[in-house]
Amino acid sequence: MTIADLPTDDKSEKPGTGPGVPSIILNRESEVRGYCRGWPTTFTTAKGSWITDTSGRKYLDFFAGAGSLNYGHNHPVLKEALLDYLSKDGITHGLDMATVAKKEFLETFEEKLLKPRGLDYKVQFPGPTGTNSVEAALKLARKATGREAIINFTNAFHGMTLGALSVTGNSMKRAGAGIPLVHATPMPYDNYFGGVTEDFQWFERVLDDSGSGLNRPAAVIVETVQGEGGVNVARYEWLRALADLCARRDILLIVDDVQMGCGRTGPFFSFEAAGIKPDIVTISKSISGYGLPMALTLFKPELDIWTPGEHNGTFRGNNPAFVTARLAIETFWADNAIELETARKGEKIAERFEALAQEIGGLQHRGRGMVQGLVFDEPELASAACEIAFNNGMLAETSGPSDEVVKLLPPLTLTDEELNLGLDILSDAARQVLR
Amino acid sequence: MTIADLPTDDKSEKPGTGPGVPSIILNRESEVRGYCRGWPTTFTTAKGSWITDTSGRKYLDFFAGAGSLNYGHNHPVLKEALLDYLSKDGITHGLDMATVAKKEFLETFEEKLLKPRGLDYKVQFPGPTGTNSVEAALKLARKATGREAIINFTNAFHGMTLGALSVTGNSMKRAGAGIPLVHATPMPYDNYFGGVTEDFQWFERVLDDSGSGLNRPAAVIVETVQGEGGVNVARYEWLRALADLCARRDILLIVDDVQMGCGRTGPFFSFEAAGIKPDIVTISKSISGYGLPMALTLFKPELDIWTPGEHNGTFRGNNPAFVTARLAIETFWADNAIELETARKGEKIAERFEALAQEIGGLQHRGRGMVQGLVFDEPELASAACEIAFNNGMLAETSGPSDEVVKLLPPLTLTDEELNLGLDILSDAARQVLR
Amino acid sequence: MTIADLPTDDKSEKPGTGPGVPSIILNRESEVRGYCRGWPTTFTTAKGSWITDTSGRKYLDFFAGAGSLNYGHNHPVLKEALLDYLSKDGITHGLDMATVAKKEFLETFEEKLLKPRGLDYKVQFPGPTGTNSVEAALKLARKATGREAIINFTNAFHGMTLGALSVTGNSMKRAGAGIPLVHATPMPYDNYFGGVTEDFQWFERVLDDSGSGLNRPAAVIVETVQGEGGVNVARYEWLRALADLCARRDILLIVDDVQMGCGRTGPFFSFEAAGIKPDIVTISKSISGYGLPMALTLFKPELDIWTPGEHNGTFRGNNPAFVTARLAIETFWADNAIELETARKGEKIAERFEALAQEIGGLQHRGRGMVQGLVFDEPELASAACEIAFNNGMLAETSGPSDEVVKLLPPLTLTDEELNLGLDILSDAARQVLR
Amino acid sequence: MTIADLPTDDKSEKPGTGPGVPSIILNRESEVRGYCRGWPTTFTTAKGSWITDTSGRKYLDFFAGAGSLNYGHNHPVLKEALLDYLSKDGITHGLDMATVAKKEFLETFEEKLLKPRGLDYKVQFPGPTGTNSVEAALKLARKATGREAIINFTNAFHGMTLGALSVTGNSMKRAGAGIPLVHATPMPYDNYFGGVTEDFQWFERVLDDSGSGLNRPAAVIVETVQGEGGVNVARYEWLRALADLCARRDILLIVDDVQMGCGRTGPFFSFEAAGIKPDIVTISKSISGYGLPMALTLFKPELDIWTPGEHNGTFRGNNPAFVTARLAIETFWADNAIELETARKGEKIAERFEALAQEIGGLQHRGRGMVQGLVFDEPELASAACEIAFNNGMLAETSGPSDEVVKLLPPLTLTDEELNLGLDILSDAARQVLR
Repeated sequence: MTIADLPTDDKSEKPGTGPGVPSIILNRESEVRGYCRGWPTTFTTAKGSWITDTSGRKYLDFFAGAGSLNYGHNHPVLKEALLDYLSKDGITHGLDMATVAKKEFLETFEEKLLKPRGLDYKVQFPGPTGTNSVEAALKLARKATGREAIINFTNAFHGMTLGALSVTGNSMKRAGAGIPLVHATPMPYDNYFGGVTEDFQWFERVLDDSGSGLNRPAAVIVETVQGEGGVNVARYEWLRALADLCARRDILLIVDDVQMGCGRTGPFFSFEAAGIKPDIVTISKSISGYGLPMALTLFKPELDIWTPGEHNGTFRGNNPAFVTARLAIETFWADNAIELETARKGEKIAERFEALAQEIGGLQHRGRGMVQGLVFDEPELASAACEIAFNNGMLAETSGPSDEVVKLLPPLTLTDEELNLGLDILSDAARQVLR
Repeated sequence: MTIADLPTDDKSEKPGTGPGVPSIILNRESEVRGYCRGWPTTFTTAKGSWITDTSGRKYLDFFAGAGSLNYGHNHPVLKEALLDYLSKDGITHGLDMATVAKKEFLETFEEKLLKPRGLDYKVQFPGPTGTNSVEAALKLARKATGREAIINFTNAFHGMTLGALSVTGNSMKRAGAGIPLVHATPMPYDNYFGGVTEDFQWFERVLDDSGSGLNRPAAVIVETVQGEGGVNVARYEWLRALADLCARRDILLIVDDVQMGCGRTGPFFSFEAAGIKPDIVTISKSISGYGLPMALTLFKPELDIWTPGEHNGTFRGNNPAFVTARLAIETFWADNAIELETARKGEKIAERFEALAQEIGGLQHRGRGMVQGLVFDEPELASAACEIAFNNGMLAETSGPSDEVVKLLPPLTLTDEELNLGLDILSDAARQVLR
Repeated sequence: MTIADLPTDDKSEKPGTGPGVPSIILNRESEVRGYCRGWPTTFTTAKGSWITDTSGRKYLDFFAGAGSLNYGHNHPVLKEALLDYLSKDGITHGLDMATVAKKEFLETFEEKLLKPRGLDYKVQFPGPTGTNSVEAALKLARKATGREAIINFTNAFHGMTLGALSVTGNSMKRAGAGIPLVHATPMPYDNYFGGVTEDFQWFERVLDDSGSGLNRPAAVIVETVQGEGGVNVARYEWLRALADLCARRDILLIVDDVQMGCGRTGPFFSFEAAGIKPDIVTISKSISGYGLPMALTLFKPELDIWTPGEHNGTFRGNNPAFVTARLAIETFWADNAIELETARKGEKIAERFEALAQEIGGLQHRGRGMVQGLVFDEPELASAACEIAFNNGMLAETSGPSDEVVKLLPPLTLTDEELNLGLDILSDAARQVLR
Repeated sequence: MTIADLPTDDKSEKPGTGPGVPSIILNRESEVRGYCRGWPTTFTTAKGSWITDTSGRKYLDFFAGAGSLNYGHNHPVLKEALLDYLSKDGITHGLDMATVAKKEFLETFEEKLLKPRGLDYKVQFPGPTGTNSVEAALKLARKATGREAIINFTNAFHGMTLGALSVTGNSMKRAGAGIPLVHATPMPYDNYFGGVTEDFQWFERVLDDSGSGLNRPAAVIVETVQGEGGVNVARYEWLRALADLCARRDILLIVDDVQMGCGRTGPFFSFEAAGIKPDIVTISKSISGYGLPMALTLFKPELDIWTPGEHNGTFRGNNPAFVTARLAIETFWADNAIELETARKGEKIAERFEALAQEIGGLQHRGRGMVQGLVFDEPELASAACEIAFNNGMLAETSGPSDEVVKLLPPLTLTDEELNLGLDILSDAARQVLR
C-alpha cells in the first residue's frame, strides 16, 4: 500500500488541497482552538484507523483522539451495542442514579479488570473528563491526609482545571490560570538528568530533612509515560522505587493513567508491569472505547472517605459510555491478546525509528508499547514533519516542552499494513525535513 | 390521571418496593454517590418525562438530569438524528478538529440563537461539563484583566473543580477541596436580607473605598436563579444594576447559565429578560438537548485573547452532542413557542404552590419559569416529601443550604397532564409531611 | 501664647524656611521615605511636646511618633531610669533570656495593669514592632483553631509584613505585596453605612448560612478606633456586640491595640470601656513609653499553645525598653489620673472642632480621647492644612483612604496651653484652606 | 585562666546553682520562650564578652545575641555616645523624619562602607528587625519583577513573619504559620548532596525547561553561611555561580546578611569575599553595634521603585541605634583590622575543633570566620554539651535541623584569652558527652 492507495472515496487532486476549515469556525470559534490549525480541513466520518474529510480524502489517524480511541474510530462491536442501547431508549443521562448500564459496567470492570489483577479499588465517577478525575484524586488525597502539598514531576500534564493545572508543568498552560499556581512542587522525572543523578536523590533528601522547606506532601502524582511532556518513559524500577518511597513515608501515590491506561503501553493499567499498586488511579480517554466522555477515579477502599455528594458532576452518569465501556472490556480484555499485540507493534515502531535515526541522524526515539516518540534534535522540524505527514494523508502531533517530539498514539487495533503505511509516511516526512 | 394510572409496564406491587440498588453499586462505587440514595432503585429506560426501573415501574421525572434534559429523555427527533449520525460513522470523538457536525452546530447557534438576540459571542468548547466551562471563564477573566479576585454570591454553585469550587458557597463541598479556597469574596445575592438592605450597598461601598481591603476583582460570577442554592431568584432590575455596576467599574460580568440557560426560565439565555449582555456566559447541561456531555464558554470577541491550546480538553469535540444540540435548537428555538409555554407552565406551578401554601401553611414558594421551589419552614420536611413523592412515582430533589427546598426542574416539554400529576403527587406528599 | 511665642532657641527667620532635608537622605535613602516629605526639615532634639530642628526652630508635635510617644518625647523620669540602666551596663540585648529588667517589667505589668482590670493574659514578646505582634497573633489564632480565614474590617491597618498586610485595607499598601493577599475577608466597620444598616447584619448572616461561601474564620481582628483608616470610632455597643458574636460562634477576637492602647483613648487598654475581654491583644508603640521598639502579644492562658521557639525574633528582649516601660506604667498608671485627663482633653478638642466646623463649614470631626480627626469634605484640603500647620510650627498628619482627615495624636501629657496652641494653629490652617 | 578564674563578682557555690528563672517569667511569659530554658538563670548586667546573673556569676557569651553583639555587650565607645545622645535629648523616636542622627549614619555608611567597596545601594529603613527587612526585600523583588515565586534554599532561615517564614526551611517553625506557605520553592544549598551532584544542576535544569512546572522566580534569597540551618558554608565559587545564574536569567539575587553581615565572617558584607554584588541585601542584628533594634534593606538604585509610604513601620527611625551604628562603623570599619582578626580567630577555632575531632571522634566542624559549628554525629549530644558549658560558665547554642550543631557566634572583639577559655570549656563539655 502506498499513499496513492489511500482508501479515499473522493480523492482530492493533490495532498493538502482539502476543503480547509469552514469560515464559521475561523470566525466564531475562539482563538483557543488548536488541532484544526495543524490539520486544516473539515472531517466528517471515521472508521477504524481512518478519518475522512468532506472532500473524501482519508487520513490515517496516528493520534487517535489523543489516546481516546485506542480501539479506533467507531468500532463496529461497540457501535452496534451503542445503537441498540440508544434505539431502545436506554437511559442516556443518569446523574449518579443506579442504572442497568452502570451496574453492568461495574460488574464487568470488577470481573475482567480488577479481580484478575488483584486490585481492589472503589470506583468514583467524576465529571466525564480526565481533568475532573484528577481534581477528584487531588481533593481526596488532601482530605485523607489533611495535608495540602502535592509533588508532581517535571513535564507532567494532568489537565486544565485549576487543581489539575497546578500540577501540570507546561509554562504556557500554567500562565493561563491568571493566578499564581501553588501547593505543588515539581521533582525530576526519571532520567531528567540523563542518568547522571541517582533516582530520588533530591526528593528523598528534602523529605528526610526537617529543615528543607518542603511542605510535607499529601500525595505524589505521576504518569508512567509522559505523553504531553514528550513521551518520557519512566523505568519500571524507578516507578517501583517511587512507590516504595511513598509507602515508607506515608505519602499517597496517584498514577494518572488518563492517557497511558486502557492498554496504551500494553497492559490495561500502565503501572501493572511495574508491579505497583497505586493508592489512587485516574482513568479517562479510552475507557468508553468509543470516544464518549467518561472518567473514573479509582482508590483503595480505606480512602473512600467521601461524604455523599461531596464531589459531584452533572454528566458523571454518561450511560451510553457505560455501555460501550463494558463492551470494550469484554471485547479486548478477556485475554492478553491485545497486550501482546501492543508490545509487538511497539517494538516494530521502535525498530523502524532506530533504523531511521541511524539512516538520517538528527533523531532519537523514546516510547513504550503504542506510545512512541520521534524526537528531533532541531525542535521545529517535528512540526514540519507533521505538516508533511498531514499533506500525505496522516494525522500525527507533536509534544514535549519545545514541541520537539512527534508523538504517535495510533489505535492499538490498527493492522500491520496500516502501521507500516503510517511509518512510511512519517519516515518520508522526516527525511524531507532533515535533508 | 392518578397515581394508579402511572404508565407502568410491569407494576411493582406497592410503591417503593422496587428492585433497589444493585450490590455492585453499593459495594464497588464510592461513597460519594448521591442520587441513588434518595431514589433507591435501578433505572433502565427513559422517554420524555418518564424514567423506568427494572421492575417496570415508571417515575415522572421532575428533576430532568438536574436541568440537563430540558426536552425530556431521549427526544425522538434528536434520537433519530443521533442514531443516523452514529450509524453512518459520523465522527464521534473530534478533539477540536473542524468537523461537519461542529460547523453545522456553530452555524445554527449563530443564526438561531446569537443573531436574533443581537449577541456577538465567540464560542469556546471547553471540556464537556459545566465546571470545565466555569474554569475556562475564570481563567479568561483573570487573563484579560490581570487581576486575580472574583466576586461570587452567597449560595452560589458553580462546580466541583478547584477554580469553580472556590466560587461556590456550600461549606460541605468547599471543605472537600482540602486546601483553603481563596481569591473569591462572596457578596449578598438579591434579597439576601429580605429586602431590608439596598442592593449592592456593600459591594459598591467596598469598591468605592480604596481602603476597604477588597482586592479589585477581575470578574463577578452570578446565576440569574440559584438552583443548587435553593431556587433563589434574582430580580431583573437587580441583574441590570449588577451589570451596570460591572460596566461602570470595568469588572467583567460572567453569567453562569449552566442550569438556567437553554430555556429553563423561559428565554434561551436566562439573562435575556433582564436586558443585559454579560461579558462571559457559561452553558452546559441541556445544550446538547439529549443529556450528552457538552459545554460552551461564550465571550465578547474582544476577550478572545486565548493562545491556541491554552485551555484544552480531550472531549471538547463531542460530535454526537453537536448533532443533537443543532437539532434541539432547530426544533425548539426557531420561534418563541417554548418560551411562552415555559412561562405559562411556570405560572401554573406557582399558582398551585401558592394555593398549597395557603391551604396547609409551613411553606413558601420561589421560582421563575420552569425552575420552581417549594420551601419548607422545617427543612427536614423537604426530604421527607421527596421520599414520599418517590414512593408515589415521582423524582424530585431538594436544594438550598439546609436542603429545605423541593426544587422542581421538570422537562420543559412535559404535558399539562404530566405537570398536574406531578404537582398532585408533590402536593399530597407535602400534605402528609405537614399534617 | 501665640506662634510668635514658640519656645525656639534659635528662631529661623520665617516659618517654613528651615534647614530642609539633607542631600544624603534625598539621594541615599529609598524613595519609600514618607514623613520627611511633608515635614521637610532636619530634626535634632526633642522634649515633651516639642521637637526641634537644626535651625533651632521648635515644632509642637501633635503626631507623637504616630502614637508611640504618648508621654511625650524623652520624658525625664524615664530618661533618668534609662540612662542609669545603660550607664550601669544593664543588659541591652537579651534575646528572650530571663533578665532583671524583664522580670520587673512583667511584675509591674501584672500588678498595675492586668490584675486591677481582672485580665489574665499570657505575655509574648514578639519582634519589637506592631506588625510582628500582629503576625504572632494571627499565627496563634490559626494554630489554636485549625482554621485559616481571618475577618478584618474596612479601612483596617495592621502592619506591613505579609500576614499583617493581608488584613490591612489600604489598596496602595496591599499592592506593595506583589502577591495576591488571601485568607482575609473584610467586613463593614461600625458606621460604615452611616447608620443605615444594622450592625453585623452581613457578618452574622454569612456565618449563619452554610452556603454563604465564607470560609469559617479563625479570628476577627479589629481596632477600637481606626487611626490610619481615618479616625473611625467604633461604638462600645458595637464592640460588645462583636465580642458576643465571636464568643457565640467560637471565633477568636483579636483587638489590635498597637495605636489605641497605652491610654490613647483614655483607659490603658482601649477596649476596657467597652467591657470586653478579647482573646488576643496586640500592644506596641507607646508601651516602652520612650519611643523604644517594643511589642507584646497578650492572650488568654488557654491559647498559650506555642512550642518553645515557634515564633521568635532577635530583638524581642529589648531590655532598655523594659526598663522605661516599667517606669512608664509606674509613673502614669498607678491611678486613673491620666485616663481622666485624656477624656477631658479629648472633649476639649472635640468642642473646638465642633465650633470650628460650625464656624467655617466643610468639616466634620471624629474621635475618642486623644485621637481626634478633623475631616475635610474636600480631601486635598487636609494635606494643605497640615502644610500650613507645619510652616506655623506644628506637626500633624493626615489619614483616611483619601488622606482626608487631619489626625491628631498629641502626647497625652501635653499642657492645656500646648493643646490650645496646637488647636489654634490647626484652626487657623483650616480657616485658610477653607477660605 | 581557668574556670575558677571566671571574673565573678559574687560566685555562686557551684556551677549551675544560679538563681534560676523568676516565677513571673515561668507563669506569665508565654510558653514560646526559648533561651531561658537552656540557660536557666536571671541575667542582669553585661560587658564585652561577659554576661552576669543576679548571683554575680559570670558567663562567657559565645552566642552574642545570636549575632547581634559582634562588638560585645555594651561597648564603651558606643555606650558613651549613646549616653551622650540620650542625655542631650537627642531624638529617640523619629519615624522616618530627617534627623541629624540618621543623616550622620547615612553619611558614614556611604563613606566608610559603600564607597570603599564600590557598592551603590539605596538604603531603606524597614521595621527594626531582620524579618521586617526580609519582608521588604521580598515585596520589592516581587513588585520590581511582576512575579510571585521566590527560590529559597534547604535549611534557610529568614524570619518569623509570614513572608519571611514562607522562605524559611524549618518545619516546626513553618507549621506555626497555620496556613499553607506558598510561593517559595527550595533548592539544594551548597554541598547538600555531599559533593556528589553538580552545583545548580537541578535549578538550572528546571529554569531551562519550560515544562518543568516551576513558576518563574522573582528572586533567589540566600545566606552565605546558614547559621540557624547548622553553620552550612557556601563556597565562594558556588555563590559566584549563583549570582551568575541569576544575572543570566534576570532573577534578582537577595543576600540575607542579617546574621552573617557586619563582619561575622570577616568582611563587613559577607558576600564581599565572593566578589558578587547582590541586587538586594538585608542587614540587621549587629548593625547598631549595641544590640539596639535596627535593620536596613539595601538595593540597587534601579530597584528603588517604592511609592512613598508603601512599606513603612513605626520604629524604622530608631535614632539612638543610628548613633551607635555610626560609631560602630567608625570604630571598627575604618580599616581592615577587624576583618583580619576575625579570619585569624576563626582559623584558631577551626584548628581547635579539628584537633578535638581527631582526639575524641564523633564530631565534625564547619564554619567561616567567627561563625563556627561543632557538629555532633549524635544530635542530642550537642544540647548536652551546651548544658555542661552553661554549668561551667559559658553560653553556647545549638542549631541545625536536628539541633546537632553547637554554633559559636562569639563577639568578634573577644580576647585570645577569652577565646581559649571558651574553647576549653566547650572541648571539656564535648569530651564529657562523648566519653
